[in-house]
Amino acid sequence: MKILNLPTLNDIQAAHERIKPFIHQTPVLSSQQLNEKTDSSLFFKCENFQKAGAFKSRGAMNAILSLSRDELSKGVATHSSGNHAQALARAAMIMNVPAYIVMPSTAPKVKVAAVEQYGGKITFCLPTLEARESTLNAIIEETGATLIHPYNDYNIIAGQATACLEMISKYPDLDVILCPVGGGGLLSGTLLSIRYLSPQTKVIACEPEGANDTWQSFKTGNLVPSLKPQTIADGLLTSLGSLTWPIIKEQIHDVILVNDQQIIEAMKLVLERMKIVIEPSSAVPVAVALSAIEELKNKKIGIILSGGNIDLNKIPWL
Amino acid sequence: MKILNLPTLNDIQAAHERIKPFIHQTPVLSSQQLNEKTDSSLFFKCENFQKAGAFKSRGAMNAILSLSRDELSKGVATHSSGNHAQALARAAMIMNVPAYIVMPSTAPKVKVAAVEQYGGKITFCLPTLEARESTLNAIIEETGATLIHPYNDYNIIAGQATACLEMISKYPDLDVILCPVGGGGLLSGTLLSIRYLSPQTKVIACEPEGANDTWQSFKTGNLVPSLKPQTIADGLLTSLGSLTWPIIKEQIHDVILVNDQQIIEAMKLVLERMKIVIEPSSAVPVAVALSAIEELKNKKIGIILSGGNIDLNKIPWL
Repeated sequence: MKILNLPTLNDIQAAHERIKPFIHQTPVLSSQQLNEKTDSSLFFKCENFQKAGAFKSRGAMNAILSLSRDELSKGVATHSSGNHAQALARAAMIMNVPAYIVMPSTAPKVKVAAVEQYGGKITFCLPTLEARESTLNAIIEETGATLIHPYNDYNIIAGQATACLEMISKYPDLDVILCPVGGGGLLSGTLLSIRYLSPQTKVIACEPEGANDTWQSFKTGNLVPSLKPQTIADGLLTSLGSLTWPIIKEQIHDVILVNDQQIIEAMKLVLERMKIVIEPSSAVPVAVALSAIEELKNKKIGIILSGGNIDLNKIPWL
Repeated sequence: MKILNLPTLNDIQAAHERIKPFIHQTPVLSSQQLNEKTDSSLFFKCENFQKAGAFKSRGAMNAILSLSRDELSKGVATHSSGNHAQALARAAMIMNVPAYIVMPSTAPKVKVAAVEQYGGKITFCLPTLEARESTLNAIIEETGATLIHPYNDYNIIAGQATACLEMISKYPDLDVILCPVGGGGLLSGTLLSIRYLSPQTKVIACEPEGANDTWQSFKTGNLVPSLKPQTIADGLLTSLGSLTWPIIKEQIHDVILVNDQQIIEAMKLVLERMKIVIEPSSAVPVAVALSAIEELKNKKIGIILSGGNIDLNKIPWL
């Protein structure tokens, strides 16, 4: 089945040119100790060093820069308590337009503060999906702001695809890419960049056991929504979208699950040995690399470290 | 007064060539958020990413590579429970010779494990300087190993000087360098590189209030030993040496003190905003940069992040 309007290589490259002045071309790090521990060569794409602390700045910047002047003037809106909210608020601040962010009243203070830091206009609502959506719709009706969905949007997907584009342009001979999956924006973007630029590279989705909707979807062939997910990887709680799932279904090599204990150990190991801070969601593919899977031995493996936003007052192993 | 046998520019450059295959040429990072917070441009030389987690690998590698074949064959020895012990054990492992490390019986398990990881031969002793020195002397007498002092050794100083050499070669127009000071190996090496390559750059020593012997020495003009130091910056407890103090005395621009609370806050801020792990000793110059000193406003400031070895089970702000 041919998917219509799928971002082309040209779209991804254009997104990259568009967002370049506003994002970091993040470094790719390696670690001899982790290579020895895994019997493989690991290449870490450090989106934890990205602006606003996560890859989400790529998609948010691309989406906002793709708006018409008229749309842009009315601002942007989303509901999120995570990295997308920060990234969108930052992108809006750069463009000097309002960002209306709907957050659950239960959102951690540290996340509220991060959105406020970028001048986001926060509206709190009850912590249910219904309340979030109805609150957001009312704001959009009132302001005329454009909804920027965190992942189910081809401009977002093309933006997230640029992380892999950068990695593949420097490391063109990777055997495998390990990518975390929540709503699938980063994963589907990664799959597209690999499809166009390095089709021999296998992309493996890495998911927490407690939020295994992509694994279920992969096994059944149908989009299974994420119901009552429970995992420390708080960036990976969402369901796949109608735009991300078809790309994943068509091209993903495998989906591998890890549990929270593995995620915490991977996060701690990266801090200890690589001296960099990653959030639990980013530790999911690292945990997969550490899980001694035969297929990953003696391979060149790209790992996308998706973000580094953690609450330093709540260290998960303490 | 002319100091005899002082490492020349040529010595430092030769040290750099000698150690290059065995160390990282660490990156220099910047942070827009920290620049805004300090009204200055900060350039962080990331020795926390160095082999064995600290700049000490530079000096240890240079010292061991400067031994004669006969000396080398008998191995090296030191007393240390810190980064020098790890760095020397690693250097000896690379050269396939023994490293005899005397550690106090009270040394934290994590530090003992780190030295063991590099194959260091550990001898435990009572936690007094007398016991450490007598134990070390007995080992040297028995084995013929060469003592590698952690800082009071020109080969060590020339090795540590290469961190600043790398930074200055990329950023030749720094107004100020902020450098932590313990025994003065890194500081005196930094001063020498600056003297030869960028004499207009001011070097400021950064020291914890609870271990202010360099500040006292600077104020009185005489080497004041470090007696009963008490600070979270556990890499900065030692006294200056007979070789490091004269270099510091001759050339240091100023010594600035910060307290443990400032050190902890700086460490947390760097983790939170830059997503990198630094040890408390490295947070000392960051705390100085954050302390709103008029002389540091609107300046280009190099900061040497000396290391990243922390006990992840003891996070100081928790």
